[in-house]
Amino acid sequence: MKNLGQSRDVFYVSDGTAITCETLGHVVLGQFSVTAREKTFPFVESDHKVDELIREINQSYERNGVKPLVFFSIVVPHIRTKLLASCAHCYDVLESVVAQVKGDLNMEPKPQLQRSHSVAKDSDKYFDRIAAIEYTLAHDDGVSLKNIDQADIILLGVSRSGKTPTSLYMAMQFGLRVVNYPFIDDDIKRLRLLPEFEIHRHKLFGLTIDPERLTEIRENRLAGSDYASTEQCLQELASVESLFRREAIPYINTSSLSVEEISTRVLERAGLKRRLF
Amino acid sequence: MKNLGQSRDVFYVSDGTAITCETLGHVVLGQFSVTAREKTFPFVESDHKVDELIREINQSYERNGVKPLVFFSIVVPHIRTKLLASCAHCYDVLESVVAQVKGDLNMEPKPQLQRSHSVAKDSDKYFDRIAAIEYTLAHDDGVSLKNIDQADIILLGVSRSGKTPTSLYMAMQFGLRVVNYPFIDDDIKRLRLLPEFEIHRHKLFGLTIDPERLTEIRENRLAGSDYASTEQCLQELASVESLFRREAIPYINTSSLSVEEISTRVLERAGLKRRLF
Repeated sequence: MKNLGQSRDVFYVSDGTAITCETLGHVVLGQFSVTAREKTFPFVESDHKVDELIREINQSYERNGVKPLVFFSIVVPHIRTKLLASCAHCYDVLESVVAQVKGDLNMEPKPQLQRSHSVAKDSDKYFDRIAAIEYTLAHDDGVSLKNIDQADIILLGVSRSGKTPTSLYMAMQFGLRVVNYPFIDDDIKRLRLLPEFEIHRHKLFGLTIDPERLTEIRENRLAGSDYASTEQCLQELASVESLFRREAIPYINTSSLSVEEISTRVLERAGLKRRLF
Repeated sequence: MKNLGQSRDVFYVSDGTAITCETLGHVVLGQFSVTAREKTFPFVESDHKVDELIREINQSYERNGVKPLVFFSIVVPHIRTKLLASCAHCYDVLESVVAQVKGDLNMEPKPQLQRSHSVAKDSDKYFDRIAAIEYTLAHDDGVSLKNIDQADIILLGVSRSGKTPTSLYMAMQFGLRVVNYPFIDDDIKRLRLLPEFEIHRHKLFGLTIDPERLTEIRENRLAGSDYASTEQCLQELASVESLFRREAIPYINTSSLSVEEISTRVLERAGLKRRLF
């Protein structure tokens, strides 16, 4: 929910997962002062489903006196026609780009149901993806350093700097094998690089965070603890950042970034290639 | 890589993560017979970076004799102008939809750098997302059934039916707390519902898979094992599907679905609301 300006019901509608509609709709709405009440309708392939959706669209219009916004992608012509006749502003998220590509390639598009998200649907990619997720789970939070020669990247940082979600996202989305290792109490006091990491130096990447943000995150987990205290957070971050600099380990500050942004920036800075699209 | 028709270099370019460009570009390319060699350029915010990109675009054109395709979203006007002057077919993934929304809302858009992926960027949502990921990790693969009253959904299925990646995706993308529980040897022989699940019946959801596909996946993991044998796979699946039917547990077949599709279908069939967009 954005909290400025107009308020609108927003529907993401597709005959597939609607992930593309959601992704694009979000970015577009981010450019307008609109409070969006969002709802997703995936797999709208039947008359029954589109009729149900249209009822909800029309109710929204009656209730609010303004048309809801619909970001959609529908292949079947008569389902599409029905949707376009509803009381909504409808935006086909693909139409314009498909038309341009069609012209440039001089080739007819073949719209197909549910080809909307190709990640890991063919068998080799499926196995790569699953293997990356499993490897990353087995190497989360310093649990194991076995087979770290197979890692694509090794993330280092204090507790709650964003290592686990970043690791899982990079595995799931990019197909990368990620080790993540937290600096904990003992490490902090006499901070040094684990000998195990020496020959993998080129794979090391640090995450850091502002002390205020770290305190906030740790308070959310263990309110009133030493662990969450400003003093502790300051000290840990100072030690770790000093290590990163001393050892020339590249690092980024995650304070104001989403997991997607952290992952993309790490990928770029580390010069890694994704194994999946 | 798709393997029909023309072959093209494809670039996804953005001043943000480029996730939107990748997502949309993929779906569009899925409608054409094009073998795509894909590369992503995120955070193209400086002259230096756009110049480097343009060099690569122009090299691609010289090498292949055909223009590469560029799916892009760039806010800064002079960076955008530079890109549009390169030897590529450039597609602004947002332009057309933004123009339509602008007209319908009668409101000026405010393009902003890096507002491109809003998932969990504000603090409450960040905490929800992290909590969902942690809960789901702690309840992966039957490791623990503690606090299952807090689960949004409980996934059941044989080993390698897709439970772990689906659980993690649902946590990361939808902010849901997922328990997943495998049926293993002992369970299979005298298959029944765990007593712990009785009062959470409404949260149970089954994943199944074709025997041939299960054998293929298990062979990839443990080639030649009993575990991967057709006989074993057939027997496990028959028992588990019979349990799903007997206990009226809704279930879907994951054989030909990506993790995104499984997750979206489970969400829909289970009538769950996502906690994040």
